[in-house]
Amino acid sequence: MDRLPSPIASLSADAAAGKRDAMTSDAPRPEARSPRGFVDRRARDLTAERKILAAVAEVYERYGFEALDTPAFEFADALGKFLPDADRPNEGVFALQDDDEQWMALRYDLTAPLARFAAQNWETLAKPFRRYAFGTVWRNEKPGPGRYREFVQCDADTVGSARPEADAEIIAMAVAGLEAAGLPAGSAIVKINNRKLLNGLMTAAGVTSEGQKLVVLRAVDKLDRLGPDGVRLLLGEGRKDESGDFTKGAGLTAAAAERVLAFTAAGTGDRAGTLARLADVIGGSAEGDEGLAELAAIDAALAGLGVGADRAAFDPSVVRGLEYYTGAVFEAELLLQTTDDRGQPMRFGSIGGGGRYDDLVARFTGERTPATGFSFGVTRLAAALKAAGRDLAADSRGPVVVLVLDQERMADYMAVAGELRAAGLAAEVYLGTSGMRPQMKYADRRLSPAAVIIGGDEFAAGTVTLKDLDLGRELASGVTDNAAWRAERPGQMTVPRAELVAAVRKIVESQP
Amino acid sequence: MDRLPSPIASLSADAAAGKRDAMTSDAPRPEARSPRGFVDRRARDLTAERKILAAVAEVYERYGFEALDTPAFEFADALGKFLPDADRPNEGVFALQDDDEQWMALRYDLTAPLARFAAQNWETLAKPFRRYAFGTVWRNEKPGPGRYREFVQCDADTVGSARPEADAEIIAMAVAGLEAAGLPAGSAIVKINNRKLLNGLMTAAGVTSEGQKLVVLRAVDKLDRLGPDGVRLLLGEGRKDESGDFTKGAGLTAAAAERVLAFTAAGTGDRAGTLARLADVIGGSAEGDEGLAELAAIDAALAGLGVGADRAAFDPSVVRGLEYYTGAVFEAELLLQTTDDRGQPMRFGSIGGGGRYDDLVARFTGERTPATGFSFGVTRLAAALKAAGRDLAADSRGPVVVLVLDQERMADYMAVAGELRAAGLAAEVYLGTSGMRPQMKYADRRLSPAAVIIGGDEFAAGTVTLKDLDLGRELASGVTDNAAWRAERPGQMTVPRAELVAAVRKIVESQP
Repeated sequence: MDRLPSPIASLSADAAAGKRDAMTSDAPRPEARSPRGFVDRRARDLTAERKILAAVAEVYERYGFEALDTPAFEFADALGKFLPDADRPNEGVFALQDDDEQWMALRYDLTAPLARFAAQNWETLAKPFRRYAFGTVWRNEKPGPGRYREFVQCDADTVGSARPEADAEIIAMAVAGLEAAGLPAGSAIVKINNRKLLNGLMTAAGVTSEGQKLVVLRAVDKLDRLGPDGVRLLLGEGRKDESGDFTKGAGLTAAAAERVLAFTAAGTGDRAGTLARLADVIGGSAEGDEGLAELAAIDAALAGLGVGADRAAFDPSVVRGLEYYTGAVFEAELLLQTTDDRGQPMRFGSIGGGGRYDDLVARFTGERTPATGFSFGVTRLAAALKAAGRDLAADSRGPVVVLVLDQERMADYMAVAGELRAAGLAAEVYLGTSGMRPQMKYADRRLSPAAVIIGGDEFAAGTVTLKDLDLGRELASGVTDNAAWRAERPGQMTVPRAELVAAVRKIVESQP
Repeated sequence: MDRLPSPIASLSADAAAGKRDAMTSDAPRPEARSPRGFVDRRARDLTAERKILAAVAEVYERYGFEALDTPAFEFADALGKFLPDADRPNEGVFALQDDDEQWMALRYDLTAPLARFAAQNWETLAKPFRRYAFGTVWRNEKPGPGRYREFVQCDADTVGSARPEADAEIIAMAVAGLEAAGLPAGSAIVKINNRKLLNGLMTAAGVTSEGQKLVVLRAVDKLDRLGPDGVRLLLGEGRKDESGDFTKGAGLTAAAAERVLAFTAAGTGDRAGTLARLADVIGGSAEGDEGLAELAAIDAALAGLGVGADRAAFDPSVVRGLEYYTGAVFEAELLLQTTDDRGQPMRFGSIGGGGRYDDLVARFTGERTPATGFSFGVTRLAAALKAAGRDLAADSRGPVVVLVLDQERMADYMAVAGELRAAGLAAEVYLGTSGMRPQMKYADRRLSPAAVIIGGDEFAAGTVTLKDLDLGRELASGVTDNAAWRAERPGQMTVPRAELVAAVRKIVESQP
């Protein structure tokens, strides 16, 4: 594959297309901005996210998961949810028609492409197939503050194992991944539920219609906000809020509502205790018993892996995603209190989630294929780490800047930078055309640890002058006169040329 | 930002959209495949490419270049070349209309987004602005063997410096990056030319029209294939090839043609010698002299950086990209002879390129802004490394596989895997439902270094049996009987449970 302009043929095509003529044409100049919901990311954020991905990849590979990259585009029908059937197929996804009129769409998650990949390669894969993926996903939704239309997800899934141990492995790996990324142990917990338990509960509570079930789920999801009393109303006849608005309830009997509340309250303490309490509430329903047996196996496997209830607990109040998943459901939550934009304390909340979904591959093959996985957003995890006091980018410094005082000695300045780099120190020669003071300002804005100053005196004496910029940063900002500044020399020292590397290293290593 | 299904509202939306109903609906099943020109990439390739990117990033940061990520989408008018003005705007790019009817397109390189970013943030950037970027780019072209519509580029650019030293720095950094990625020193060279030299040559050779210039460039580009005699014909009246087809020439006088040939032949040996020979050919033309002065400064800076002509040479025969760039042009070439699909020797050729382009930012700001950069394709560099005998993925092994012989002891098997992982060894429990032999086959296909076998005997005796799979791989493939296989025990040993980690580590470390 050739990423360069191809030889001469397309040279002329480029010229014909006016590649270089745009400036001189009369066409209006385009505005320099990005489409809504798309953002540039600078070094600071990228450094933090790369550290997260590297740490997580190492953990996931240690669990036997292999990396997989799928293309940004899938055929729209392979994504399933968003079949283009109108003039504007862009509902939720970014879709376009290929030359052959087929609709393609940018992936909106990494699960649908995995399902396509697994179906396509099922015969040749070693099964169960464990893979992890980092990848950009795109959602054609209304952007908002902190809500982008492009972001990076990190997924890990096992396809082809119906064993609860596969769920347990995913959970343990998620815990290990989050901790490797920098979350202090105990600052996050993976909460585990099972759709089958919920189905068992619905049977036990006499809920039959999908509509009524949805109202029950919505009520349970408000437990944090309304407390048991508010939810009890929503499970029964309904609830009037502070503004006087009335929300119609699920219409359960009082006994059934208590059963639902007991179910949601069962998730405290150790996992075995939760299972025992749950058995009291939903025991006897066939599907409920199946869910309990799966959770018991997950408990045993987690215990084998050394993951206690402080890191992975059963919590029947987790209902998010339950309609999507077919068995176990996981949600990773940051337990720390943080503050919102107005300084108010708030729970940080979810930092990732997953579960068992046995139907996705079947969309292609017609055969139900067991699968389970966990997913997190890298930007959100970086924010969680920051909230937990682990700023991975805090140590990101700029390069040492070699100032240019004599235009005739550029090759010498380049050699100085080269020597520092060869010693593993980030360094650059100032390549603008400004004088001393703007060069110092430049070094300052680059967050440089040190400036190397070599003028006529230094060249003559075979020395270099070094400036510790952390030490001198505040003073330097007030300097208006080059001569005075040189005389004052805050944080400045002159050393023999041969001691350049050692002296710079000493400054760099003395700084945070 | 929330990457999970949002609570209950969109739960019901998911249900309404039939996310889980696809399997049971009567709709035809989609075929599991990717659009043309898009490919899945497995762990082996990804491992190699990640190593390249990590090594190059380290070098580029040591040169003071900061990471930048821009979005996949830009406004189509910001990309410039491909203004959508028809019903099918997808000429060369993947474009679609946003909700507000504005055309957006996926970036086709990383330079246009950099120009947009630099124009947008010019006031607040520390200048000169050095950035590097890894990123997927998309080209809506006809795919072919090894020619994809999506690939990863790695770019480094300096914006805001007109100094030739900025070009030299980019060249030295490209050399260092390629070597850090694994290319043996001496296996590649960066060839440097300058558009101004070529313009000077055209003046000296009496070429005036753009059309004639293009014919001259095309002729020079065929030097490798046709040799000087063939090119001489193409520079003059024209040339008849073996099939009898006649290609009309540029119509230069014999003296002018010799001048062009002398120009292209000037690039042998050291850089100063090349400059002297070039001065003979084009000296006196104002633009030519300017180009020569720039190359002389690049030579001095490269010398300061310790980069000799064996790694970065002046080569006036490099014409690729000259129409696009405004000054210096670079092309990195792998010097090794490799073989093509039919085993014929071939030159691997270009592995990256770049140059100075002073017009791009001006598209937005109207002000000419000096910039210079280098770009390579990651997949192509990985192929070059392979051709140079450096297969970065050669050491990619699978995890240790813990076999499951007793379904009741799953938690114990999980604990064994956990113990190995805690010791830094990649390990997994077999989570399928098959018997002993398929489990061994699975471990084999995973390229596992070792299998851990714990059955009733081992549990009773407090031991584990380990199998060195490299040692036993060939023998194992012939086994048809489990009992016989266990009796034969090729590459197999039994150790006390407490020695598990040490014994596995010994096997893993004994393997390539």
